[in-house]
Amino acid sequence: MKNIKISNNVIRRMPRYLRKLDELQAQGIERISSNELGRQLSLTPSQIRQDFSCFGEFGQQGYGYNLTTLREEIAGILGMDRGYQVAVLGVGNIGRALLDHFDFETCGFHLAAAFDVEQKLIGTATKSGVPIYDAMEMGNFCKAHPIDVAVLCVPPERAKAAAQGAILAGVKAIWNFTNVVTGLPEDENVVTENIFFSDSLLALEYYMADTIDQESRRAARQKQTL
Amino acid sequence: MKNIKISNNVIRRMPRYLRKLDELQAQGIERISSNELGRQLSLTPSQIRQDFSCFGEFGQQGYGYNLTTLREEIAGILGMDRGYQVAVLGVGNIGRALLDHFDFETCGFHLAAAFDVEQKLIGTATKSGVPIYDAMEMGNFCKAHPIDVAVLCVPPERAKAAAQGAILAGVKAIWNFTNVVTGLPEDENVVTENIFFSDSLLALEYYMADTIDQESRRAARQKQTL
Repeated sequence: MKNIKISNNVIRRMPRYLRKLDELQAQGIERISSNELGRQLSLTPSQIRQDFSCFGEFGQQGYGYNLTTLREEIAGILGMDRGYQVAVLGVGNIGRALLDHFDFETCGFHLAAAFDVEQKLIGTATKSGVPIYDAMEMGNFCKAHPIDVAVLCVPPERAKAAAQGAILAGVKAIWNFTNVVTGLPEDENVVTENIFFSDSLLALEYYMADTIDQESRRAARQKQTL
Repeated sequence: MKNIKISNNVIRRMPRYLRKLDELQAQGIERISSNELGRQLSLTPSQIRQDFSCFGEFGQQGYGYNLTTLREEIAGILGMDRGYQVAVLGVGNIGRALLDHFDFETCGFHLAAAFDVEQKLIGTATKSGVPIYDAMEMGNFCKAHPIDVAVLCVPPERAKAAAQGAILAGVKAIWNFTNVVTGLPEDENVVTENIFFSDSLLALEYYMADTIDQESRRAARQKQTL
């Protein structure tokens, strides 16, 4: 099924669907039409049907989607049942925030360890009991406990070296919070997902400027009319 | 110019262009063709020309884009010259990470203040000298120093109340790091930009699972051939 290449936009909408389904299920809703789902997500019903049709047929004509079934399908598509092992590299503010507050388990990951270079952190554990090891020991650790995903939370100037170390240790994916590209040659076998805070803030800035400009124009028009 | 409605996908690509231009300029490059820009960004040249044409004509046929001019145009489109004032709400790990390490100025924002409910933080300042005030005082503070953007870094259970408080204090936009929706009625005059870490991690999970499955299939085929 996954042999066909599915567009990035479709993949990126899947987590949004999942969040919406969780919200609806928390409200006790069991079934939803593509019309209503579309309305709530600001998507057209045909867009929604098209997205799901990339992975097979989930809904039933005239009946809508059963939320439990649809959620299971999406979770399967996203690979949430794979039980990938995660390690956080760098226990600064961002690393700590993820270790203490981010729910890796719900996304289908197991948080196995954290690594840092700071002597006073090494040998301690996080609030929830995740051990913090010496970053130099990552390679050895991974021989006994293979890690699938490295969460990169090191300072930007260490991003490349940390990513290289993680790849040498055998990780299959890098979740990058350093706000810089790792600068490694693209390797189709290592998946990298960057979270660029600035991309989000700049989009916000555009929409702000746009909203404010529209209001000014509206105000100017009203003034002219008076 | 901004009267026409520009698609979300186009807007979301603008920060990516900006990062690439900064990278190219740092390498001393002054000019680039849409072909080369496309190759480096994994976009087609016609996609790039089409994106920019939403905002006017920047390039010159057969000459390519002048990086300085193009960067200025994109910065203008995004509103990076507006000097919006920012306050961070919640000085926990994420708030602290943004206050200490995120470069608001480069994105065109001025970081004016932070707010928290924790007595031991109130009255102190961050490393870079941003004052931390009592969250209860935000309304008063904003009367004297209007804040345009509230960066929501409070615990998820406080997200709604903090967003409401910020809107009452007159902010025009909310940059939401709480990983939950603020649950406020949609107000077209307040722009909200959510950073959902889980959306990014779930996309990573999909691409990992997909890559691993492809490798297994390839390995299985090779075994059959042998």
